[in-house]
Amino acid sequence: MADADAPTDTINERDFIQSIERGFAVLTAFDADAPRPTLADIAKRTGFSRPAVRRILLTLQQLGYVTGSNGRWTLTPRVLSIGQHYTASHALIEISQPHLVALAEHTSEPASLAALDGTEVVHIADVPVRRIMSVNVSVGMRAAAYPTSMGRILLAWRGSEFIESYLGQVSIEPFTAQTVKSPDELRRVLEQVRHDGYSIVDEELEQGLLSASAPVRNAEGEVVAALASWTSKGRSTAKQMRDRVVPKLVELAASISTDLGHKAGITKMRGSGRG
Amino acid sequence: MADADAPTDTINERDFIQSIERGFAVLTAFDADAPRPTLADIAKRTGFSRPAVRRILLTLQQLGYVTGSNGRWTLTPRVLSIGQHYTASHALIEISQPHLVALAEHTSEPASLAALDGTEVVHIADVPVRRIMSVNVSVGMRAAAYPTSMGRILLAWRGSEFIESYLGQVSIEPFTAQTVKSPDELRRVLEQVRHDGYSIVDEELEQGLLSASAPVRNAEGEVVAALASWTSKGRSTAKQMRDRVVPKLVELAASISTDLGHKAGITKMRGSGRG
Repeated sequence: MADADAPTDTINERDFIQSIERGFAVLTAFDADAPRPTLADIAKRTGFSRPAVRRILLTLQQLGYVTGSNGRWTLTPRVLSIGQHYTASHALIEISQPHLVALAEHTSEPASLAALDGTEVVHIADVPVRRIMSVNVSVGMRAAAYPTSMGRILLAWRGSEFIESYLGQVSIEPFTAQTVKSPDELRRVLEQVRHDGYSIVDEELEQGLLSASAPVRNAEGEVVAALASWTSKGRSTAKQMRDRVVPKLVELAASISTDLGHKAGITKMRGSGRG
Repeated sequence: MADADAPTDTINERDFIQSIERGFAVLTAFDADAPRPTLADIAKRTGFSRPAVRRILLTLQQLGYVTGSNGRWTLTPRVLSIGQHYTASHALIEISQPHLVALAEHTSEPASLAALDGTEVVHIADVPVRRIMSVNVSVGMRAAAYPTSMGRILLAWRGSEFIESYLGQVSIEPFTAQTVKSPDELRRVLEQVRHDGYSIVDEELEQGLLSASAPVRNAEGEVVAALASWTSKGRSTAKQMRDRVVPKLVELAASISTDLGHKAGITKMRGSGRG
């Protein structure tokens, strides 16, 4: 029992509880394409039998996460409260809020904070901006790491073992004609990010989309989040972003780091553990 | 099998999958008080045995929702992505965003959108405001319905059967000296809300907290959300809120309703189904 507390990346098959996996699979089978699925829709999406899906839905309904009427099922707002447990248990998010607002005010553009989750970046906090054409980011949204400024910030200081492991898991695809083309090119880009202390990505994820990010460090000096600003090519160029946005972005990321207990000058490569 | 699709409020014990309940219980055992619990902490919080908690944690780790190191466990940002499925499957949230921003700009105060979940209100979208002393609302946050303006909006048009069922489930407690005192008083308040078309709540949930809400209706005329503005007694009185905030609040709630396909004048009491 000595190492019962010791987490491990490997898991014995006997320890894996398939019902839990299936519960999450059904819960995450709802999305913009299937906002109010039938039992049959969910069975098709998950590949589970209808009787299995029925039991899972009834269980999730009992727990308050889904509700059904007229043969259609929907997620309830209780689903959002699950995310609240992430937010409440990560002080970083509350600490960042005023700095995100300051960034959004400085730029008149949306601001967000992102963390790495496996090979993807996830928005963990955001401040939207009023404008019909504004970039649409929201908490929980995900994107591939390599064609985003946030992802590059979150990778750059992770150490070569981590970066090589990351490169082994992803295949670099041309989201646009500008997307980075090879692992070698990405390695050079990350080297440049480490040198500059920020990242600007110009239409590599999506045409017309321009973003800049800077590192947020914890007390140990590890990069734990990326502070990001978003705009469109119609309103700014990469050069304008570098001149007008990056200095404030870097300053605010440093302020968040200070609030997290980071002392300027202390930086640390994170180990090769899970993101 | 004819009614296999038909949702029901009753559930056969054989249909309830306890592992799923336990999986969520462990996932939601993380919060501000226990941001990085040990296995033993979680066993204590959930009442499950250590071996059971261990299997659940290993399963959740395999699914990417938790990660462990040095005997401590944390939630990963993937947890936020669960909520994204609620957001993506409820068009209301994207539709509301520009109106929430317009409200926050008009008031220079945070704005949020809330829905009813059982006997509580849940913030389903929000726009924060930069100010150290600003009211802290965030997506997924919950509160009792009866002492909040959002809750009163979400209850007022639900029909007496629903309201009586709600009153049977809650016990009215004095959050402050101003909190509504009895079911009868709440019934009168809800009648007033239906008459006024908005709700102002003055320090009934928390001392110093003032909020106003207005109904958002869907195409069928049902109240599906409450649009809310928040401030503190230090910056506004209830009268100022009524004069300066409520007209804009009601107008923006009506705009969201229109965007949802609601035609002015069409209202409908919702049935007594689950919130």
